[in-house]
Amino acid sequence: MTKTIAFVLYPGLTPLDLVGPLQALTVLSQLRPGFATMVVGQTLDPVATDTPLRVAADRSFEEVPEPDVLLVPGGLVPTIRALTDQRLLDYLRHAGGRAEQVTSVCTGSLLLGAAGLLEGRQATTHWAFLDALAAFGATPRRRRWAADGNVITAAGVSAGLDMALHLITRLADEDAARQVQFAIEYDPEPPLGGLSWPDAPRSLWDPLREETLRQGLADAPDLRERLLSAMR
Amino acid sequence: MTKTIAFVLYPGLTPLDLVGPLQALTVLSQLRPGFATMVVGQTLDPVATDTPLRVAADRSFEEVPEPDVLLVPGGLVPTIRALTDQRLLDYLRHAGGRAEQVTSVCTGSLLLGAAGLLEGRQATTHWAFLDALAAFGATPRRRRWAADGNVITAAGVSAGLDMALHLITRLADEDAARQVQFAIEYDPEPPLGGLSWPDAPRSLWDPLREETLRQGLADAPDLRERLLSAMR
Repeated sequence: MTKTIAFVLYPGLTPLDLVGPLQALTVLSQLRPGFATMVVGQTLDPVATDTPLRVAADRSFEEVPEPDVLLVPGGLVPTIRALTDQRLLDYLRHAGGRAEQVTSVCTGSLLLGAAGLLEGRQATTHWAFLDALAAFGATPRRRRWAADGNVITAAGVSAGLDMALHLITRLADEDAARQVQFAIEYDPEPPLGGLSWPDAPRSLWDPLREETLRQGLADAPDLRERLLSAMR
Repeated sequence: MTKTIAFVLYPGLTPLDLVGPLQALTVLSQLRPGFATMVVGQTLDPVATDTPLRVAADRSFEEVPEPDVLLVPGGLVPTIRALTDQRLLDYLRHAGGRAEQVTSVCTGSLLLGAAGLLEGRQATTHWAFLDALAAFGATPRRRRWAADGNVITAAGVSAGLDMALHLITRLADEDAARQVQFAIEYDPEPPLGGLSWPDAPRSLWDPLREETLRQGLADAPDLRERLLSAMR
C-alpha cells in the first residue's frame, strides 16, 4: 500500500512552509517505493501566497479525504483568517483525526489547534506566536519541532525542513533521510551563524502579532480575544 | 528608486530552489523600503515543478526586461532541457548582462553558463553536477555559495537560503539579514547533523546525472557531449 502524504494549500500561505517539506518528501517518494506526495486544496486554481508566487494544488480535499500523513503550512494574516474557514477546518478535522502522522509548520499548528487536534498535546509554532497555542488546549514548547504521539509541529518557516527529515526517519529510516539530505544538499551555513535568541526582535514582533490577530480575526471577536489573552 | 529582484520561472524546476530565496527577499521588501520581488516567466499560467505543486509567475519576461537582481533556480531533466530554450536564454543574457547582481541556486548556474554569463568566473552548483560548470568556461568551486564579482551561485537546493541571506547583506546590511533570519526562524537543526561528504552517495548520483544529461539533451548532442566530457 502506498502512503499518501497530503500538503494542505489555502490562500495567502507562506510558501516556504509548504515547499521545504514537500521537496524533501517528494524526493523520498522517488527514492523509495510506497510513498506519494500530493498537494490538496479547496480549488485546483492558483491561489496567492505571501510572496508574488501563486501556487496550485493537484487534488481537491474530496479526492484525498484520508491521507496517511497530513502537513499544514502557516503564514500571517491569511492563516489567522483561515482559523474560521469551516471547510478547511472540517477537512483538517476529518483527515487529521484519521492520519497516521499529523504535522504542521510555523503557524500551521494554530490551524491544527482550531480543528481540535492539539488538545492536551505539546506543540510548537513560529517563536513570536508560541503562547497562542495555549488557547487551543496545547502546551507550548520552544523546540525546532515538537513531537507528541502522532502530532509533529515545527517552529517557524524554515523549521519545516528539519521536521521533514525527522518525519522521513519515522516513515522510512535514517538512511532515507540521509539520502534526501544529500539530494537537497542540506548542509546549512547561515552566513551570520544561527539565531541569537536574546536578540530576538520582540519590539517589532509583539505589535505585529497583535495586529495580525486583529486583522485576521476582525469578524471573530471571541476567538481573537482568546488568542490575544493567551499571548499576554 | 526601488530595486527589482526577479525570480525566473520555467517548467519543471525544483521549487525549493526558488521559494527559499523568494521568501527571504520578500521579507526584506516588507522590512525595508526600496525592494520589490517578482516572479517572471514566459507565461503567467501555472507551470509544473518536480513536485506535485504547480507554480505561476506574476510578470512576463517582457514586463521585467532589466531587473536589478536576477535569480535562476535549478532542477534535474527539465533544467537540462532548458539549456537549449532560446527564449529563456535570451532573457537571461539580456537581463543578466545588465543586472547589478546575478544569482542562481543549484543547477540554475548551468543556465547562467549556457547564457554565457559564467565565462572566466568561479561558480558552484549542486555537488553532483559541479564538474559540468567547466563546459561553460567557469571554474567550479565546492562552496555553499560562490561569489565572483556580481555573480553569486549557490550549491544544491537548500543552499539558496544561505546565499539569499548573503545577498541581503550585500543589498542592505547585516541587520536586515538578521531580521529576515528571525522572520523565517532560520536556526537550522538537521536531525542527523550536517552532511558527511565522504559518505556522499556517488554510486547513486553518477548514473543519475549522466541519465539526466542524456534525457535533457537528447536533441542537442554537441552540448550533451561537452557536458558529459566535462564531468568525466
